[in-house]
Amino acid sequence: MRDVIALLCAGLLAAVAVAAADEPAPSMLGFDARDAAAQAKLESRFDAQLDPGELRDWLKRLSAEPNQVGSRHDKENAEWLLAKFREWGWDAHLETFYALYPTPKSETLELVAPTAYRAALHEPALPEPALPEDRSSGAAGQLPPYNVYGGDGDVTAELVYVNYGMPDDYQELERLGISVKGRIVLARYGGGWRGLKPDLAEQHGAVGCIIYSDPRDDGYWQGDVWPQGGWRPPFGVQRGSVERMQEYPGDPLTPGVPATQDAQRLPLDRARVLLHIPVLPISAQDAQPLLAALGGPVAPEAWRGALPLTYHVGAGPAKVHLAVSSDWTLKPVYDVIARIAGRSQPDQWVIRGNHHDAWVFGAWDPLAGTVALMAEAKAIGKLVKSGWRPARTLIYASWDAEEPGLIGSTEWVEAHAPELAEHAVLYVNSDTNARGFLQAGGSHALQVLVNQVAAGVRDPETGVPVRERLRAKLEVDGFDAHADAEKKELARRAQAGGDLPIAALGSGSDYSAFLQNQGIATLSLEYGGEDADAGIYHSAYDSFDHYVRFGDPQFAYGIALAQTVGRTVLRMADAPVLPLQFGGFAETVADYVRQLHQLADDKRSRTETLRQLLETRAFTLAADPLNPLRPPAQEDEVPYLDFAPLDNAVVRLKRSAQAYDAVAANALALSEARRAALDRLLAGQEHRLMDARGLPGRSWFQHMIYAPGLYTGYGVKTLPGVREAIEQRQWDVAQRYAVIVAQRLDDYRAGLDQAVAILKGQD
Amino acid sequence: MRDVIALLCAGLLAAVAVAAADEPAPSMLGFDARDAAAQAKLESRFDAQLDPGELRDWLKRLSAEPNQVGSRHDKENAEWLLAKFREWGWDAHLETFYALYPTPKSETLELVAPTAYRAALHEPALPEPALPEDRSSGAAGQLPPYNVYGGDGDVTAELVYVNYGMPDDYQELERLGISVKGRIVLARYGGGWRGLKPDLAEQHGAVGCIIYSDPRDDGYWQGDVWPQGGWRPPFGVQRGSVERMQEYPGDPLTPGVPATQDAQRLPLDRARVLLHIPVLPISAQDAQPLLAALGGPVAPEAWRGALPLTYHVGAGPAKVHLAVSSDWTLKPVYDVIARIAGRSQPDQWVIRGNHHDAWVFGAWDPLAGTVALMAEAKAIGKLVKSGWRPARTLIYASWDAEEPGLIGSTEWVEAHAPELAEHAVLYVNSDTNARGFLQAGGSHALQVLVNQVAAGVRDPETGVPVRERLRAKLEVDGFDAHADAEKKELARRAQAGGDLPIAALGSGSDYSAFLQNQGIATLSLEYGGEDADAGIYHSAYDSFDHYVRFGDPQFAYGIALAQTVGRTVLRMADAPVLPLQFGGFAETVADYVRQLHQLADDKRSRTETLRQLLETRAFTLAADPLNPLRPPAQEDEVPYLDFAPLDNAVVRLKRSAQAYDAVAANALALSEARRAALDRLLAGQEHRLMDARGLPGRSWFQHMIYAPGLYTGYGVKTLPGVREAIEQRQWDVAQRYAVIVAQRLDDYRAGLDQAVAILKGQD
Repeated sequence: MRDVIALLCAGLLAAVAVAAADEPAPSMLGFDARDAAAQAKLESRFDAQLDPGELRDWLKRLSAEPNQVGSRHDKENAEWLLAKFREWGWDAHLETFYALYPTPKSETLELVAPTAYRAALHEPALPEPALPEDRSSGAAGQLPPYNVYGGDGDVTAELVYVNYGMPDDYQELERLGISVKGRIVLARYGGGWRGLKPDLAEQHGAVGCIIYSDPRDDGYWQGDVWPQGGWRPPFGVQRGSVERMQEYPGDPLTPGVPATQDAQRLPLDRARVLLHIPVLPISAQDAQPLLAALGGPVAPEAWRGALPLTYHVGAGPAKVHLAVSSDWTLKPVYDVIARIAGRSQPDQWVIRGNHHDAWVFGAWDPLAGTVALMAEAKAIGKLVKSGWRPARTLIYASWDAEEPGLIGSTEWVEAHAPELAEHAVLYVNSDTNARGFLQAGGSHALQVLVNQVAAGVRDPETGVPVRERLRAKLEVDGFDAHADAEKKELARRAQAGGDLPIAALGSGSDYSAFLQNQGIATLSLEYGGEDADAGIYHSAYDSFDHYVRFGDPQFAYGIALAQTVGRTVLRMADAPVLPLQFGGFAETVADYVRQLHQLADDKRSRTETLRQLLETRAFTLAADPLNPLRPPAQEDEVPYLDFAPLDNAVVRLKRSAQAYDAVAANALALSEARRAALDRLLAGQEHRLMDARGLPGRSWFQHMIYAPGLYTGYGVKTLPGVREAIEQRQWDVAQRYAVIVAQRLDDYRAGLDQAVAILKGQD
Repeated sequence: MRDVIALLCAGLLAAVAVAAADEPAPSMLGFDARDAAAQAKLESRFDAQLDPGELRDWLKRLSAEPNQVGSRHDKENAEWLLAKFREWGWDAHLETFYALYPTPKSETLELVAPTAYRAALHEPALPEPALPEDRSSGAAGQLPPYNVYGGDGDVTAELVYVNYGMPDDYQELERLGISVKGRIVLARYGGGWRGLKPDLAEQHGAVGCIIYSDPRDDGYWQGDVWPQGGWRPPFGVQRGSVERMQEYPGDPLTPGVPATQDAQRLPLDRARVLLHIPVLPISAQDAQPLLAALGGPVAPEAWRGALPLTYHVGAGPAKVHLAVSSDWTLKPVYDVIARIAGRSQPDQWVIRGNHHDAWVFGAWDPLAGTVALMAEAKAIGKLVKSGWRPARTLIYASWDAEEPGLIGSTEWVEAHAPELAEHAVLYVNSDTNARGFLQAGGSHALQVLVNQVAAGVRDPETGVPVRERLRAKLEVDGFDAHADAEKKELARRAQAGGDLPIAALGSGSDYSAFLQNQGIATLSLEYGGEDADAGIYHSAYDSFDHYVRFGDPQFAYGIALAQTVGRTVLRMADAPVLPLQFGGFAETVADYVRQLHQLADDKRSRTETLRQLLETRAFTLAADPLNPLRPPAQEDEVPYLDFAPLDNAVVRLKRSAQAYDAVAANALALSEARRAALDRLLAGQEHRLMDARGLPGRSWFQHMIYAPGLYTGYGVKTLPGVREAIEQRQWDVAQRYAVIVAQRLDDYRAGLDQAVAILKGQD
C-alpha cells in the first residue's frame, strides 16, 4: 500500500512543479502587479527550499520520546529547535515560564459491585501497552493516562452513565429522574469539550468523573484499529486537560499575568479553573465491564455507543472505587522565540506559532505542524541569507505547554501584551497537519488573503489548487442527501464561485490569547480530514509509525502547509499595505446577526409550544408508563429583544466595508506617510472588536465576535455575548451585549471610514 | 415488575369504566342523535362482553405449538376457531385453498475461507435453542429458520456485505466499484421489505443471499435481549417470505384466480414472483464471523451495525458455501369464514379479518390480533343472541397463510371477487397488537369515522381517549429537537385540534387484496409502539411467555382493539347511511399532489446540480485517493411534467367533497329509496379510484391512490403510478398516469356530485 502511495504522490508532485512554472502572476491583495510578480518569484524561491525528507527526519527525531510538559525530551526538543532557528539565521531565544502542571502519582479504578473488576491500566497505573508495529510505544518516560487539573480524591460510589456529559445530557437525566449527586459519572469522549464533562458533573454534585473512548466515536466502529488501521484500539486512552479554559486559559495560578519565576500566584484553592473531583480517562476495554454492570433505564438512542451491550444509565447497581493523586508542583515551560527584524516596518510584527509539547510522543499533535513551521523558518532563513529581508518583522514561535491549557502561548502573550498591542498585525497558528483539505479559520478581514493563497497552492493528491479541492469537497458534502442546513449553505456558497468562507475560531489551540485576549488578527491554517487522527488522539499511539502510515506518508501535506503559511506570512510581511478586505467580514457579521434573530424567534416559538404541551399534559400522556419520562421543565417566556442597535450597525458596517474595498487599490498610489497612516489604521482594526469588560462572567475573553462557547469549550460561538445569553435565557444580558457589540461594530466601521478618507485623500 | 403493571392497569381500568358511564352520547357520523344514543348503548353492551382473561386463555392455546402453514396445529387452530364462531352463533365454515408453500429440507451455511466457520443453526438445520424462560421454545414441530420462496441451490462464492440490500445500497456499491455478480450477498434485515433483498441481489447477478438480524436494528443495541428483556438475542433469527409480492401477492402459481384444488396452475418456472437464488436467514451470532472475515473498503457509516467489529464491504476474502433445498409441494390453506346476515341491508357486507398462521408460535404476530377479533365475534354473538341484528351483513374471517404472501385473504378475495364488488362496504384488518398507541390506516373517506371511534375508546394506561393519547404522542414526537419534516407536520396537525390523520396503506397484511385489488374501503387498526415486537419478530421467541411480559401483560390493549374495531364495525353495519366523509380525503389527495410537484422539482434541481458537479469533476476532487469513490452516474434531465390534469381534478374534488360534507346530514331525512340509492353510491366510491389497467408493470394493483412501493415492498406509495414513475425517471409513464389518476379522481368527484344531488333532492 505504501508503495502505491509513493508512486502516486511522486507523479503528482512532478506535475505540480510544471504547472506552477507556467502560471501567470497571481492576484495579490495589497500588492500592485509588479510587486505581485516579484512576490510570486520570492514564493517560488521559498518553495524550492522545502524538502519533505527533512520534515520526515525532523518528525522522527521530535517524536522519538515522550514530550509532555516537564519531560526531559520536551526540553531537549525546545533546545534543539532553538539551535535550528539560530542555524537558519534567526535571532532566537528560549523564554521560560513556570506553570502549575500536576502529574499522576497514583490512580485506582475498580468496579466493586455487583461484580469486581480492576481496570487494566490503573492498578497500578500504567501507560498503554507497547506494540511491535509502533516502535516508540515502549519508550521510557511515559506517564499513565491522566486528565490534567482534575482534583485529588479517593471515592467509592454508585456509577451513572451520562453519555457525553454535556448540558443536554443532564436535561435528559432530569427527565429520567436520575441524579448524579454523590455518585461517580461515566462519560464518553466527544460531543463537546472534554473539560466540561467533569466540570458539569461537579456542578451537579458528582464526586468523581471517568471518561472513556467509545469505539463508536473513534474506535472499531469508525474503521480498522491500530496497528491494522488507524483507529483507536480498545486499549487506547485519550489523555487531556480538564482546566476550565472557558474562563481563562494559561497557567491556572497566574490569570492575566505571565507565569514568571517570581510571579504572584493564586493559592490552589482560589484558582477557579481547577476542578475538585477526581477525573480519570480510561479505555473502552476498561469501560465495558462498568457499562455492563449498570442497571436502570436503557440509555436514550443518542447515548448508545458501539460496545456489544445494552447501554443502561444506572444509577448503580455498579459501584466504583476511583482514586487519583497527583504531584502538584510547578513545571518549567520552554517557549522558543525566533525573530527576523523587518526591513522597512520593523514595528509591525507577523507572528507564527505551533506548539511542541505533547501528551506522549505527539507525532500528529503537534509535531506534524511543528515540522511545517520548521520548514518555513528554514526557507525564510535561506531567503534572508541570500539577501532578502521582510518589510515587517517576523516572529516564529514554538510554544510549550499547549496541551494542559495553551500555557506557553498564553503566558507569552500576557508577558508581551503592551508590545503586541502596539506591534502585532497577524498571528498564524497551526497544530496538527495531515492529508486532506485546507482547514482555514480566523478573522474574516483575512478571508480574501487566505483565498488568494489557497488558489496558488497545489493539492498534492489531485494537482488542483487547494482552494478548488476544498470547493469540490464543500459542494459534494452539501449534495449528500442527508446534508444539514449548514452543509447545504456552504455548498451553495462554494458553487456560487468566488471566495470560500473561512471558519470562525473558538479555542483549543494557541491562537486563543492572540485573538480573544489581545484582538490581534488571527488565522489557523492546517490540512486534514482524509484520515482521521481521532483514533490515536492524545494517546501513546500518536507516533511516528502511525503518522507515516495514516497522517501524511510522503509529507506532501507538510509541504503544502509550509507553502500555505509561508505565502500568508510573506505577503503579510511584504505587502505595501496590509492585505485586508472587509466586505466578507461585514457579510459574515450580518449573517451572525441574522442567526441571532432566528435563534430568539425559534426559542420563542418552542417555548410557547412547550407551554401548550405542558398545559395539555402531552408529555405525560405520550410517555410509556413502564419506561417513565418526566415532562421537561417549564421555561420562562422569550421576550422580543431589541436587535435594532445590531441591525443598524450591520447596515453601516456593510456600507463602509464596501466603500473601503472599492477604493483599497488606491493605497498603492498614496504618499509614504499616508500609506503608513493607513497601515497603522488597518493594523488596529481587529482590536476595535475588543471590549475591556470581556464576555459575561469571563473578562479574559474580550473579542466581541468570536469566542469559545461556555458550554462547547472548543467550539466557537459568534457574537458570544448575545448568543450565549439567549441560549442561557439571560435576556437582560443579551440586551446589554447587543448594545456593546453594536458599539464595537460601529468603532470598527469608524476605522474603515477613516481608512476610506485616507484612500480618497480626504483625511 | 409484573406485579407493578398489574396494579397499575387494574386501577386504570376501573377508572375507565366510571368515566365511560358518565359520558354523553358521542357524535356519530351517519346517525342522528337518537340513533347515536341507541348505538352508544349497544356499544356499552358490546364492551360488557369483553373479558381480558379470555383473551389470555385463547392466546395461550393458539400459540402453544408451531402454527406455520401446513402444520398440524395451524389446522387445529382453524378448526377450533370454526367451532368457536359456531358456538357464538355465527354461520361459519372453512374455506380451503391449496397453495405453493415450500418448506426447508436442508440448509447449509459455512465460511470456507479465509478461515472456516459452520453456522450454528444450519448444519444440520436446527430451530432456535430452547430457553427455560420461554416455555414453548422447545416444542416439537418447529422448522429451522427459512425464507419462503427463495430458490433451491448450492453455491460457493465470495461474500459481499450490501447493508440493507436496497436500491440506494447498490448505488453505493457502484460508487465503491464493487459488483455482486457471481457472489453471495450478506444483507441485514431492515431498511425496506425483506423480499427486495434477494430480488435485487438476483437482479444484480448475485448467486445467493444471506439475511441476518443486526443487533443495531432489533438486538442488544435497542434494549435488553430475551429473556432478560424483549429484544432479539444474538441467536434469534427472523424468518419471512421473499415472494415478489410487489408484483402480486397470494399463491405464486394462481395469480388473479383462487387456488382451489383444481385451479389451473403456472409451472414453477413461469411464476414471476418466485426467486431463483437460494436465500437463508441467519442470526447475528452466525453473521459475525462472516462479517469479520470481509476485507475491502470500510462500510459507509449508514451501513454499520452494532456488532463489535469494523464493517467491511468485501468482496471477499470471505468465501461462503450456501445451500438450500426445499419441499416444493402444495399445502392446504384454511380460512375460517363466519357470517351474520344483515337485518335490513344484507347485501352490504362489513368484513373483518386477521390471520391465524404464524412463522412459529406467533403469539404477537398474529395471535394477539386474532384474540381481539375473537372477543369481538363473541360479543357480537351475544348481542345477536339477545335479539339484536346488524342492519348490514357482518363477515368475520380468520385467514390462513398470510405469512408466506397474504395467501388466505388473497385467494378468498379472488374466489369471491364478483360478490365483493357488489356487496363489500368495508374491510377492517388487524395483525399484531400490543401496548401503546392507536395505529390506524386506510381509506381516507373513513378518517372521520376512525376519529370518532378513537375519541370514544379509553386508553388503558392513561385513562384518556386513545385519540387524545395519540395526539399527545404526535405533538411530543414533533417537538423533539431532531424531528424530521414529516413529524413536525404531523405535530402541527395534531396541535391544530380536530381530526388526526390516518395513514395511507401499503402492504404487509391481509388488507392488500381488498383495498388494492378490489377497491373496497379498508382500515387497518392496531395498537402498539410502546414495547417493540421487533426483537422476536418472526422468530421462535414470538411466544406467549414473551407476549405476556412485553406485549400486553393485562390484555388491556386486546380489549381496546376489540372496542375500537367493534365500534367501527358496528357503526358501519348499523348506520342509516354509510359513515363516510370526503373533505379529509380531498385534502389528503391535494397534499399528495403537492408532494408530486415537490418531488419533480427537487429531482430537477438535484439533477442539475449533479450535472454541474460532474462537469467540474467535484466528486473526483473531493474523494480520498486512498479510499476511492467513483462519481455517481450522470442522470438525464428532469423535464417539466404536466400536472395540470391532477391539479384541476384536485380543485374539483375539494369543492365536491366540501359540498357533500356540508349536506351529508340531510341523508337522515331522505326517503327510504333515496337513502338506499345514496348508500349504494357511497358503497361504490372507493371503487371509482380503481383502474383496470393497474399500475405500470403490475396490473394486480389497481388502486390509483394507494399501493405498496415497488422498491419499498411494504411501505406505501401514494398516487403510485405517478410517484414511482418520477422516482424511476420514467417521464412518459408519469405523464400518462397523471392523466389516469386525474380521471379516477374525476370519477370519484362525479360520485360525490350525484350524492349531493340526491341529498339536495335534485336527482
